[in-house]
Amino acid sequence: MNEFDLIRRLTASLPSNDTVVTGPGDDCAVLDLGLPDRLVLFKTDAVVEGIHFTREAAPEKIGHKALGRCLSDVAAMAGEPTAALVTLALPPTFDPAFVSSLYDGLSALARRHAVAIVGGETTANPERILISIALLGLVAKDKCIGRRGARVGDAVFVTGELGGSQAGRHLDFEPRLAEGRWLAGHFGIHAMLDISDGLAGDLRHLLEASKVGAELLKSAIPISRAAKAQARAESSSRPPLLAALTDGEDFELLFTVAARDAVPLTDAWREAFPGVKLSCIGKITSELGLRLRDKEGVRPFTGHGYVHFA
Amino acid sequence: MNEFDLIRRLTASLPSNDTVVTGPGDDCAVLDLGLPDRLVLFKTDAVVEGIHFTREAAPEKIGHKALGRCLSDVAAMAGEPTAALVTLALPPTFDPAFVSSLYDGLSALARRHAVAIVGGETTANPERILISIALLGLVAKDKCIGRRGARVGDAVFVTGELGGSQAGRHLDFEPRLAEGRWLAGHFGIHAMLDISDGLAGDLRHLLEASKVGAELLKSAIPISRAAKAQARAESSSRPPLLAALTDGEDFELLFTVAARDAVPLTDAWREAFPGVKLSCIGKITSELGLRLRDKEGVRPFTGHGYVHFA
Repeated sequence: MNEFDLIRRLTASLPSNDTVVTGPGDDCAVLDLGLPDRLVLFKTDAVVEGIHFTREAAPEKIGHKALGRCLSDVAAMAGEPTAALVTLALPPTFDPAFVSSLYDGLSALARRHAVAIVGGETTANPERILISIALLGLVAKDKCIGRRGARVGDAVFVTGELGGSQAGRHLDFEPRLAEGRWLAGHFGIHAMLDISDGLAGDLRHLLEASKVGAELLKSAIPISRAAKAQARAESSSRPPLLAALTDGEDFELLFTVAARDAVPLTDAWREAFPGVKLSCIGKITSELGLRLRDKEGVRPFTGHGYVHFA
Repeated sequence: MNEFDLIRRLTASLPSNDTVVTGPGDDCAVLDLGLPDRLVLFKTDAVVEGIHFTREAAPEKIGHKALGRCLSDVAAMAGEPTAALVTLALPPTFDPAFVSSLYDGLSALARRHAVAIVGGETTANPERILISIALLGLVAKDKCIGRRGARVGDAVFVTGELGGSQAGRHLDFEPRLAEGRWLAGHFGIHAMLDISDGLAGDLRHLLEASKVGAELLKSAIPISRAAKAQARAESSSRPPLLAALTDGEDFELLFTVAARDAVPLTDAWREAFPGVKLSCIGKITSELGLRLRDKEGVRPFTGHGYVHFA
């Protein structure tokens, strides 16, 4: 049983109440607590030493990554992050200077996005450091974008470049908060999520939630320099396109809009975010599953993104 | 550096924003998100295998405890819990049946208190199970009770009986949610918290936050059967009074009210909660620190409750 099977089983019949707009299965849970025009976003995410970072990484970057992952999920729902709690599970031999630097990195990112750190706790985890962040955010009721709304014929877009994140980007990416809000504010985005498990894996989540399929144009998929450099340096490494499709932790936004919005959106994006690449990589289809098109034709792509329990 | 020193250092200069009513240092963070008459409570709490439970414990009870600890913090602020996220960090060899039972215990408690489980995540923690709960709650703006409001002359009350929780109660206590709300709804409670680190340790938190001291009457401190039985069974064990003062995980409410309210509160409590003991254990003083009175006089008590990093 892998992570997704386990989650599916556990979330089949969870307790609910009338505040719940969206429960398990999207980037954030969405709650209606009675605010006249806004919904509350609620998210947790954990990073674990030896899995999401090594002790050799700069502690500031570990703190940055821990919070950044949650912020990326709020970005994917076009929300605004508000307040976070930090759970730090530490071996008893922890170095206070390390923990203090970790908080520095986390706090610097929080300040840039006006997020309050309102507490949390430290507890013991004898063998390794684990950092879990709980995050609250807000989103306008009519601008909250889930992953269920993709429609046949939609254009599929992705921000930035994909693959090779482990070479460094996974520790210092900037969550696409401004971009997420801008997209929802200016265009009728049908579905959106952030890429944490790899383009192929996360697009599949979006397709399954929306009950549609997609066809991607191989040559349109933006491959990062890191993925290309890795492929050149290590003959054993995967081809860069496969890295872009299946490496995890890109923390870019993946979204769909009506095809008629594709060109105006691309033009407006260039004005709004001249430093951030935006690529139209394919279209939503009624045929289920994920397919790749190149000059030789169309073939199903069955490779997965990162699965935590293999 | 122990847990409290570390927390003090980390929380000295955290980012804030104008939603924050109460940041680090109370049972829950308190946020004003713009609801006309209510504040949002925000809390996380983690339990770790080998520290807060053993793998021999019934998984249902582990799940119950993980959520119950957070609910107890919402109870201590007189709030109503709304929605929770569950972070499960598991060794790769986890038994799905164990995890499923853990969720059963957690869900049963959530249902009893109308709490929605709105998602979370599973991640790997190779050596031991760690469960972190993030919880949202609501509280009426004029009924939110912190730990800073104790006044000289107040009577100090505690619910239930204390000590010996490790014999079983720590795994199946019922959080005092109804009691906390009833107290805030019917009386002018000045300060309240839940006892998780032991009566002496947690009362000291309340005293420090309120800049006052307290004198407790030894004979009034309610000692649990479990603490008495333990003292009888093991000659090496601590005296039951010391267990009541310093054992952790009682999850009872500790609060202060004006002395004039002490008798009417006790009478009304007996009607409202005939099955739950309530004890007036002492008074708030201007002299700082914690003192114990018995027939031989008054002496300072310097013993601490449970400190996670010794």
